[in-house]
Amino acid sequence: MYIPDHYRRLKRGPQVILPKDIGIILSYTGVNKNSICVDAGTGSGWLAVSLARISKKVTSYDIRDDFIKIAQRNKTNEGLENLTIKRKDVTKGIPDRKVDIITLDMPNSDKVIKNANRSLKENGYLCSYLPHMEQVKKFVKELEKNKFRNIETMEVIVRDMMVRKEGMRPSTKGVWHTAYLVFAQKSAKK
Amino acid sequence: MYIPDHYRRLKRGPQVILPKDIGIILSYTGVNKNSICVDAGTGSGWLAVSLARISKKVTSYDIRDDFIKIAQRNKTNEGLENLTIKRKDVTKGIPDRKVDIITLDMPNSDKVIKNANRSLKENGYLCSYLPHMEQVKKFVKELEKNKFRNIETMEVIVRDMMVRKEGMRPSTKGVWHTAYLVFAQKSAKK
Amino acid sequence: MYIPDHYRRLKRGPQVILPKDIGIILSYTGVNKNSICVDAGTGSGWLAVSLARISKKVTSYDIRDDFIKIAQRNKTNEGLENLTIKRKDVTKGIPDRKVDIITLDMPNSDKVIKNANRSLKENGYLCSYLPHMEQVKKFVKELEKNKFRNIETMEVIVRDMMVRKEGMRPSTKGVWHTAYLVFAQKSAKK
Amino acid sequence: MYIPDHYRRLKRGPQVILPKDIGIILSYTGVNKNSICVDAGTGSGWLAVSLARISKKVTSYDIRDDFIKIAQRNKTNEGLENLTIKRKDVTKGIPDRKVDIITLDMPNSDKVIKNANRSLKENGYLCSYLPHMEQVKKFVKELEKNKFRNIETMEVIVRDMMVRKEGMRPSTKGVWHTAYLVFAQKSAKK
Repeated sequence: MYIPDHYRRLKRGPQVILPKDIGIILSYTGVNKNSICVDAGTGSGWLAVSLARISKKVTSYDIRDDFIKIAQRNKTNEGLENLTIKRKDVTKGIPDRKVDIITLDMPNSDKVIKNANRSLKENGYLCSYLPHMEQVKKFVKELEKNKFRNIETMEVIVRDMMVRKEGMRPSTKGVWHTAYLVFAQKSAKK
Repeated sequence: MYIPDHYRRLKRGPQVILPKDIGIILSYTGVNKNSICVDAGTGSGWLAVSLARISKKVTSYDIRDDFIKIAQRNKTNEGLENLTIKRKDVTKGIPDRKVDIITLDMPNSDKVIKNANRSLKENGYLCSYLPHMEQVKKFVKELEKNKFRNIETMEVIVRDMMVRKEGMRPSTKGVWHTAYLVFAQKSAKK
Repeated sequence: MYIPDHYRRLKRGPQVILPKDIGIILSYTGVNKNSICVDAGTGSGWLAVSLARISKKVTSYDIRDDFIKIAQRNKTNEGLENLTIKRKDVTKGIPDRKVDIITLDMPNSDKVIKNANRSLKENGYLCSYLPHMEQVKKFVKELEKNKFRNIETMEVIVRDMMVRKEGMRPSTKGVWHTAYLVFAQKSAKK
Repeated sequence: MYIPDHYRRLKRGPQVILPKDIGIILSYTGVNKNSICVDAGTGSGWLAVSLARISKKVTSYDIRDDFIKIAQRNKTNEGLENLTIKRKDVTKGIPDRKVDIITLDMPNSDKVIKNANRSLKENGYLCSYLPHMEQVKKFVKELEKNKFRNIETMEVIVRDMMVRKEGMRPSTKGVWHTAYLVFAQKSAKK
């Protein structure tokens, strides 16, 4: 799978969110110059970096020091002063308030929904990246309990095409699955 | 297909670039707060609006007054002062220089490549949205002639999942194809 | 989705297994002129008819008289004397023995696995057609309990291509999902 | 990609038609116990063997002796007396008449269409396996010239699902593309 330069130059730990999934997170949350974002877990920080390149402020939390170190290096190399990376378990609480967008890439992200609800602005976006369908089910159920709206689950498939002298055709092999993406918006008070 | 609020509220003419394709354009071109963008043809302006929400400056060109009118309305409603929409045939020339990103959604976009090459910064991104494979072949051939690098063609499939009490499964029907995306970078001088 | 003549002429009730899924059942079970097949539930009988056109003998069971009536008509119209359609609840037992292939299209097919195991020859194929992921999980778990081998789950996507004067491209819309197919083989005694 | 036992035991040369594509050929052509089939090029003979397991008679042609040798071995091992494999260039002519189904897996299969038209029964099926889009276009154009009907092009994607204790999800990587399948029927006289 093709990885553009501005991602290829980033350090990566064992796993990263790929540009195909990052792209859909960008367009579906509508992140923009005025956005305040929270991200957890940081991992290698590819998503946090992508959000920070665009938005006003990003705070990214992780519980693993080795991941934070990789992400810090990416932050520094990219010169992103609006990105803060901190050690924190977001299942225990998120200190930020009036947040526009929260992105979650962690196994038990359903346990963050209550805290996310408190942190988000009305109509703010929550997005979770979940490899397994059992996680999706749990996450969606908890979103419903917390009265999130526009709950939408999807998978993103970017299929490379070969365009060569011998002919045009899809690439023979490719990435079939990384994770499901679940999007939802915090309800507005009536 | 799910369309998020920040797109649903935009006016649309007969056809728009959908958030699934816009997302991949955002992440693969790496558009950010410092980016100078050129876009043609404007159409309903969904892509131009998306780029303007993120970047420093967007100039969008179209040859059809009815499209420009729809896009102008979207610009005004979204309050995007960094977006300029103009009537111009970009096959005849692009006045902008030192551009980071050029996006093309027009039938004969291969005829814009030479002009795009002059407008782009070194390593700047050109992206074309092309429904048919014959257009892709022509476009890629012309990119090669003009020494663009990292030429990559792909299609973006976002597959909605149903998560309901009766069970989880992919949506029965969906959008199979909108267009192929071709990305390339202007070569740097040696 | 394109339906070939030899399916289009068959009667259909509310739902049928489509040729795309039937095709994979044919090639993955290796059904041939010598095969003895059992099928449940019959539904409109498209799968039973497909198996009977190829194999030596097919017995198809359903619990609904209205479905059996439709399938009987298909059998008669196609002149398939090697196809027998009977009213029977296969969760209560399958009378057939030394069967090569058993195909299941019914909501609680995991409750048929023990009976199927008794009916099948060693290395015989069991195939289940299941719309939801939860059903697949249950079915696979029960297969493992009953020591089936080569347990494989998949989905079949047939994507129509438009080849026209204005250009070639995938069809804009299409069938994304019908059901998952689970295949497994009865273990051989050692 | 999962290959069932009855294919895994066959010899294979450099390339074979996979069970996913064979399955769709079986269901879309409606091959059955009464079918007379012609196949070219034989290659390793996986498709010829699949057709011979089901139909009355298969004649398979290839121009390469090394391929014919592999296919002959598969024929013998499978005990398929209704399969004949011969050295012949079918672009120069097909001796068989009143054929139900002709399958083509060769680079210049558009040059066989006229001969296929003469060999086929009315309403008989022609199917071509073509890796590249350009080949598909040429083939479809020639079918139209020869008044074939129900011309349909498609690609077959079989996506393996992982069903494990840690959760259910699609397989991470997979086969994206083998070839396009083009189906058409010989027109009936009026």
